[in-house]
Amino acid sequence: MSKRQKRFILSESDIPRQWYNIQADMVNKPLPPLNPATKEPLKPEDLYPIFAQALSQQELNQTDAWIDIPEPVREMYKYYRSTPLVRAYGLEKALGTPAHIYFKNESVSPVGSHKLNSALAQAYYCKQEGVTNVTTETGAGQWGTALSYAAKVFGLEAAVYQVKISYDQKPYRRSIMQTFGAQVTASPSMSTRAGKDILTRDPNNQGSLGTAISEAVELAVSTPNCKYTLGSVLSHVTLHQTIIGLEAEKQMEMAGEYPDIIIGCFGGGSNFGGIAFPFMRHTIRDGKQTQYIAAEPASCPKLTRGIFQYDFGDVAGYTPLLPMYTLGHNFMPANIHAGGLRYHGAGVIVSQLLKDGYMSAVDIPQLETFDAGTLFARAEGIIPAPESCHAIAATIREALRCKETGEEKVILFNLSGHGLIDMAAYDQYLSGSLHNYEVTEADVQANLSGIEKII
Amino acid sequence: MSKRQKRFILSESDIPRQWYNIQADMVNKPLPPLNPATKEPLKPEDLYPIFAQALSQQELNQTDAWIDIPEPVREMYKYYRSTPLVRAYGLEKALGTPAHIYFKNESVSPVGSHKLNSALAQAYYCKQEGVTNVTTETGAGQWGTALSYAAKVFGLEAAVYQVKISYDQKPYRRSIMQTFGAQVTASPSMSTRAGKDILTRDPNNQGSLGTAISEAVELAVSTPNCKYTLGSVLSHVTLHQTIIGLEAEKQMEMAGEYPDIIIGCFGGGSNFGGIAFPFMRHTIRDGKQTQYIAAEPASCPKLTRGIFQYDFGDVAGYTPLLPMYTLGHNFMPANIHAGGLRYHGAGVIVSQLLKDGYMSAVDIPQLETFDAGTLFARAEGIIPAPESCHAIAATIREALRCKETGEEKVILFNLSGHGLIDMAAYDQYLSGSLHNYEVTEADVQANLSGIEKII
Repeated sequence: MSKRQKRFILSESDIPRQWYNIQADMVNKPLPPLNPATKEPLKPEDLYPIFAQALSQQELNQTDAWIDIPEPVREMYKYYRSTPLVRAYGLEKALGTPAHIYFKNESVSPVGSHKLNSALAQAYYCKQEGVTNVTTETGAGQWGTALSYAAKVFGLEAAVYQVKISYDQKPYRRSIMQTFGAQVTASPSMSTRAGKDILTRDPNNQGSLGTAISEAVELAVSTPNCKYTLGSVLSHVTLHQTIIGLEAEKQMEMAGEYPDIIIGCFGGGSNFGGIAFPFMRHTIRDGKQTQYIAAEPASCPKLTRGIFQYDFGDVAGYTPLLPMYTLGHNFMPANIHAGGLRYHGAGVIVSQLLKDGYMSAVDIPQLETFDAGTLFARAEGIIPAPESCHAIAATIREALRCKETGEEKVILFNLSGHGLIDMAAYDQYLSGSLHNYEVTEADVQANLSGIEKII
Repeated sequence: MSKRQKRFILSESDIPRQWYNIQADMVNKPLPPLNPATKEPLKPEDLYPIFAQALSQQELNQTDAWIDIPEPVREMYKYYRSTPLVRAYGLEKALGTPAHIYFKNESVSPVGSHKLNSALAQAYYCKQEGVTNVTTETGAGQWGTALSYAAKVFGLEAAVYQVKISYDQKPYRRSIMQTFGAQVTASPSMSTRAGKDILTRDPNNQGSLGTAISEAVELAVSTPNCKYTLGSVLSHVTLHQTIIGLEAEKQMEMAGEYPDIIIGCFGGGSNFGGIAFPFMRHTIRDGKQTQYIAAEPASCPKLTRGIFQYDFGDVAGYTPLLPMYTLGHNFMPANIHAGGLRYHGAGVIVSQLLKDGYMSAVDIPQLETFDAGTLFARAEGIIPAPESCHAIAATIREALRCKETGEEKVILFNLSGHGLIDMAAYDQYLSGSLHNYEVTEADVQANLSGIEKII
């Protein structure tokens, strides 16, 4: 038997004490979010009705490169971090590639994904500020699961709006959230004005992250001592996720290598930014040559086929206008199994970095992602989440390119979560009933035409 | 926020290099397995048609207290071991108990349970001896999943007979095994004589571990280069699982405590023996006072209500006669969700130890196990397997006893696996549709009356 893996784990004292805020280092800062009514740039105070104050301040902080991780949050991190950095010898061998493939295994968190890194931080700050209830949206359910548990940890009540298609496709995610004590509602629902409006127009609406966000925000602003929390897209969420890349940086040092290519799947940007930004600081500061690749679904291709524009973060238009790559806030993605990637826009930081050429993106059809995930499972013993399968597929593309050229590139990807709650998807894949979804140029254009042009 | 957990992890070099064979230390050795036809004690050679030779020898080894872990197996162990020992402050607080509760978290293995510890060893020895195909049975699917992955690691083909009720209740377990490349068949099936016989008598038979074992053994002996493997009950399986207790011993030392009570759930005995036996050597050798408690389902109470007797390990009577606590090999357990505990007998080592008073057993109703599992999930962030919920429930009983008496006992239990594939069970529990199953004394007696008395 040849070597399958090698794991690198940090000692407890090496777990980072600060998150990295790339905004401070960016040459072109992200454009400000705008008040949709006045078109005025938002100040942190404008976000206080929706988010905890500390999070609102982090969101717009473009000056401090390092933000202290509060001790109670770091204490919770210690229960599952550092997550392992793994040299994937098994996958390399299965591909016959000279590339060195590493992955950061975020699937070992108690809730099965990287999402807990931010959920704990958000729940902590809410608790500190006297909040008693938190709301959120969730797609596949990874974020909702993380927030449900984090709320329980810090003694908050959690209400989760889960995208209807995922609620139906993955009933066990709902059960997990309920087991952790959260209240879970399929979105669109009749419990909010936004949900009612959507269902009135389209009674069979299957929901999207955009619709669920509208409902969760509405509940937050209409409930006392209640704040909204978000699992991706926003800059403070990505900030919390930089714990991934900061650990990986130290772990790659233990492995004696430095990545040539860093890959993450892409929904709103938090797991991609989480692993990429700490490394990217060396690119921005010192011109270090590294490729950063975001892997998005071919059926929701905002980075590869969207436009850079101010747009709403949700369907109902409750959020500020954000400067981002978008397919239009009314874009309704196909019902792929990677529910966490079914979002019309990209976070403002990633959008600016993509525009400025610091990173690139690829879009990958659903079947290729499951080919990749199954190969990975057999080689490495971990069944990846459908979202993470996008990162694996992009990694395999690069590794096979190395096989052609003979280059021994070092590739690092983020295994954002496991797929144990997504076995229905694997079942469809194994039985041959899974298929790809095409997005026509006409679909893209039709949606984009609805966006008011500001930039 | 008060402390929730503290984790203790061993360095790679501290991962044990030998398994502990308690048979060498036992005062009264287990009685020998008998050839059912001749009633003669079995020699290792008699097992060679079914099992790998190395495993057959381990099975009957009553002299060597320490068995070297082959380097390729230990290399694979390093990919997920040591598993964490966790001080469960969260659970202690939820119970308000002065007891110190620790758990060994085997759920972090790539396949989600302790089963991989033996699957890797069994697949390795089979490969060493030129075997190309392995068969096995599985209940809930934890063992089948482990063997499917271990077979893939060592380049073997795996055929798994899954108990029909679990195959239907937990389709995603099947998908996981298939994703790892195994062939999975619901048992009883029409693919073996044993299966056909059962279905002819009872077309709606839902299967049990006993029926699945019969089918897997039959396939093994009738297929060239094919061996049968078993996930529990047998002494060599428990031998491999002692890695759990050996690690826990070092980790409890790191924590500066020694357990007063050690608890494991009980199906065939491998996870219980795995955590208990290394500690029990101090009881046998030095008279160390420790309580060892096996937690079994009230619906399958072989330790608490069975008799000590020679009996078959399977329904069809293909296996040797084993001296064990049994409910009779035709006992058909109720369809509880803890599929891994639905077995009529106990391993020969545990049976002898129970008879000799070294350990005790408790039986727990299904609802109490899910009460315990849900409380644990909210307190510790891990959703336990229905099997493991039995250990948690027994732990909670002891911890509440400490609350009454004020004793600060140190309790250690084995969290044998996570319950992420068992969310349908939690869903039933949360919706109030789960219930208990009673076993009447008449049921027990009716089954036992069929066993030929040898001892």
